[in-house]
Amino acid sequence: MDRAFRVVVLGGDAAGMSAASQVKRRVKSAEVIVLEKGEDVSYGACGMPYNIGYKGNINDLVVMSAEDFRRKRGIDVRLLNEAIGVDVKTKSVAVRNHATGRQYEISFDKLFIGTGARANVPPIDIKAKEGVFTLKVLDDARKIKAYIDSREPSRALLIGGGFINLELAENLKRLGMDVIILEKLDDILPGYERELVNILKAHLEENGVKLITGVDVLGIDEKLIVKTNKGDFEADFVNIAAGITPNTDFLKDSPIVMQKGAIDVDRYFKTSVEDVYAGGDCAMIYHRLLDRNVYMPLGTNANKAGRLAGANMVSAGEPFAGIVGTTLFKCFSLGVAKTGLSLEDARNEGYDAESITITAPTKAHGYPQQGSITLSYVFDLLSGRLLGAQMVGSFDAIWRVDVLASALYAQMTIRDIQGLDLAYSPPFAPVWDPILVCANQAIKRVGK
Amino acid sequence: MDRAFRVVVLGGDAAGMSAASQVKRRVKSAEVIVLEKGEDVSYGACGMPYNIGYKGNINDLVVMSAEDFRRKRGIDVRLLNEAIGVDVKTKSVAVRNHATGRQYEISFDKLFIGTGARANVPPIDIKAKEGVFTLKVLDDARKIKAYIDSREPSRALLIGGGFINLELAENLKRLGMDVIILEKLDDILPGYERELVNILKAHLEENGVKLITGVDVLGIDEKLIVKTNKGDFEADFVNIAAGITPNTDFLKDSPIVMQKGAIDVDRYFKTSVEDVYAGGDCAMIYHRLLDRNVYMPLGTNANKAGRLAGANMVSAGEPFAGIVGTTLFKCFSLGVAKTGLSLEDARNEGYDAESITITAPTKAHGYPQQGSITLSYVFDLLSGRLLGAQMVGSFDAIWRVDVLASALYAQMTIRDIQGLDLAYSPPFAPVWDPILVCANQAIKRVGK
Repeated sequence: MDRAFRVVVLGGDAAGMSAASQVKRRVKSAEVIVLEKGEDVSYGACGMPYNIGYKGNINDLVVMSAEDFRRKRGIDVRLLNEAIGVDVKTKSVAVRNHATGRQYEISFDKLFIGTGARANVPPIDIKAKEGVFTLKVLDDARKIKAYIDSREPSRALLIGGGFINLELAENLKRLGMDVIILEKLDDILPGYERELVNILKAHLEENGVKLITGVDVLGIDEKLIVKTNKGDFEADFVNIAAGITPNTDFLKDSPIVMQKGAIDVDRYFKTSVEDVYAGGDCAMIYHRLLDRNVYMPLGTNANKAGRLAGANMVSAGEPFAGIVGTTLFKCFSLGVAKTGLSLEDARNEGYDAESITITAPTKAHGYPQQGSITLSYVFDLLSGRLLGAQMVGSFDAIWRVDVLASALYAQMTIRDIQGLDLAYSPPFAPVWDPILVCANQAIKRVGK
Repeated sequence: MDRAFRVVVLGGDAAGMSAASQVKRRVKSAEVIVLEKGEDVSYGACGMPYNIGYKGNINDLVVMSAEDFRRKRGIDVRLLNEAIGVDVKTKSVAVRNHATGRQYEISFDKLFIGTGARANVPPIDIKAKEGVFTLKVLDDARKIKAYIDSREPSRALLIGGGFINLELAENLKRLGMDVIILEKLDDILPGYERELVNILKAHLEENGVKLITGVDVLGIDEKLIVKTNKGDFEADFVNIAAGITPNTDFLKDSPIVMQKGAIDVDRYFKTSVEDVYAGGDCAMIYHRLLDRNVYMPLGTNANKAGRLAGANMVSAGEPFAGIVGTTLFKCFSLGVAKTGLSLEDARNEGYDAESITITAPTKAHGYPQQGSITLSYVFDLLSGRLLGAQMVGSFDAIWRVDVLASALYAQMTIRDIQGLDLAYSPPFAPVWDPILVCANQAIKRVGK
């Protein structure tokens, strides 16, 4: 070989930098080049709402700088360099350097695509020159923070009732702003039991956040007045969180197989093309319970995908165990979490599924501080197998989702869950943990 | 039959009342008689240190009164009635009524023994008339609270460095007392990795609690001066926590098989004698990992034993899944938890076991509040199977013990743990949860 074994990584965030680091850790001699179209690598995007709300330094979110990756790990990180095409026959990437305007080609032995996703902006007429944001990449947070610092907005309008805007609502309240959330659908959090959603909605109201559903946003005028089918809303800060789209347009001429714009991968994170791997928000990921790929763009998934893809590119790996669909977010003092299938999911999969919901205290009887959790199990009536769990409750009690995610991994039945030897201590849990209380209720339905 | 099917329950705390309630719930017509030697039933004993420290009402710890059990559940609860012997041939119990001094016999169809345990007092010369306590039953807490209220002690001496005195230390500090703990052994928390114990010891010191190890207590004089091989300690409050002994002396003439004073049971909580069941602090319990019975007197175990024994006495039951040895306690702002086997346990069981310990943050990088956990796995080098886990860390991070207890239940390997789809959100956990970080370290050792 004229040159070292070369791995090219597209995208320098969670998935990409994890892949690059794994390759370099395993094969010291490999040349690893990361092409990042922006100016940031390896940052904790999920922390952005809190960085805004707690007025942190934006750099607090950066785990390692491009310079650190170069110096400490020997990775050739090229900021402001964007992949604009991939030729899988010649195994080369067409790159545009946004700093110089120059365009060049770079060949690879192995390619990892971790180009992430971008925030959707619905097709509405936005006349406002500033004050309208999305929050997906670090630079979005940077702009929002600069705007808040200089303009001191007091009326926030959040378009979209998903978890990003729910997290942002808490943090903008922390900054003293009035917050209104506008949701297009008739309710928020699809896939959650309505009983749980209602607890969250009451909590939003208690915390002074106004949620309006069934709202069609028609446009935003020059003065930042948001026009909707339910009237006009004056604002001085708008954030739009209306889903995301994988950054895969540059692959449109390649034979790499995609599903609705997300790159399809096998359980080794290899795409349909030999030597080309993908992971993170631009790709599908294997779901263990469904035994097929899904699109679930989350920070954990991106990190795992990058790490495993990196390992698999240079060594014989293990297949990815798969996700079970665990998500969690905080909203004021509540936690909202879900793992596995919803009742609707489960029935769509052909299970004779049922759900049961309980509300239980989260500390021992008589302990001076008390909490509450509302917990729901989805389970198969025939086998008694747990298929999913959802919960809304005191944030310090929401960790139970991880026990149930582990139960799903191990294909536990409700009877297995009854048998779990969970910790008991008055400041920590009641003697019958809510996990067991819910199992004790669910078991009555199994096999009947 | 001349009379209804009769179940007699000895002991009215967690195990006994759970058993009684289960029987009555399943067989409405059954006559259920509970004999309780004291004046309290169904209370949360584990909450006593906090009830003392937070100056709660002692009745806050009572889950249901004897009167409630009589009225709401139709259970004949007889306070101040103590079983003094069991004749398994005639199926009858000899009872002493401490209120009247009268003695009587009562026959049973099924018997449940849940007489609990009593606090050990080492054979030392105690001359003090008052101010020396143990803390096992509700009446102990009542006496301690009355003493603290009337005498306002300021110097507490806690004999024994186990979790009860560690919990008490926090709570006596809450009341403004000086606290010294004297431990007989050279260190506290046997079975824990020393690295973890050292974190706890530093935390005790930071919180102004003095721990002295290798102390032989020789006696306590009239003025409450505690004489030891390491000098005299002046105190105005002394608590002795030196282990417990099952309350089974009244069975000494019965053929019921015991192990070191604890009643042996099968996986249905049946003793060696037909129609006689037992559970709670007076009995052994099945350990799932060891596949044999152990003595592990804990509130959770007592509740489960009582519930299952009650069900099994009147219906065809399932075998108890078994404990995995999960324990947890809080000490100031730290949590200390353990599940499964210690390294020493594992090696004694014949495993080619190793342990690995990591320290990791418990919130996302850049999140304004941060915590730390030190986590240790014990695993089998050959199979990679997890055998145990221990942890000391921020109390709000200590829930991870329940994930690992679930992993032990399911016989997960380290690779399985790497595959867990744990929740991620900055206020909740880092993107690589400490559970995964420790697994990523441990995997390097497996199969080598």
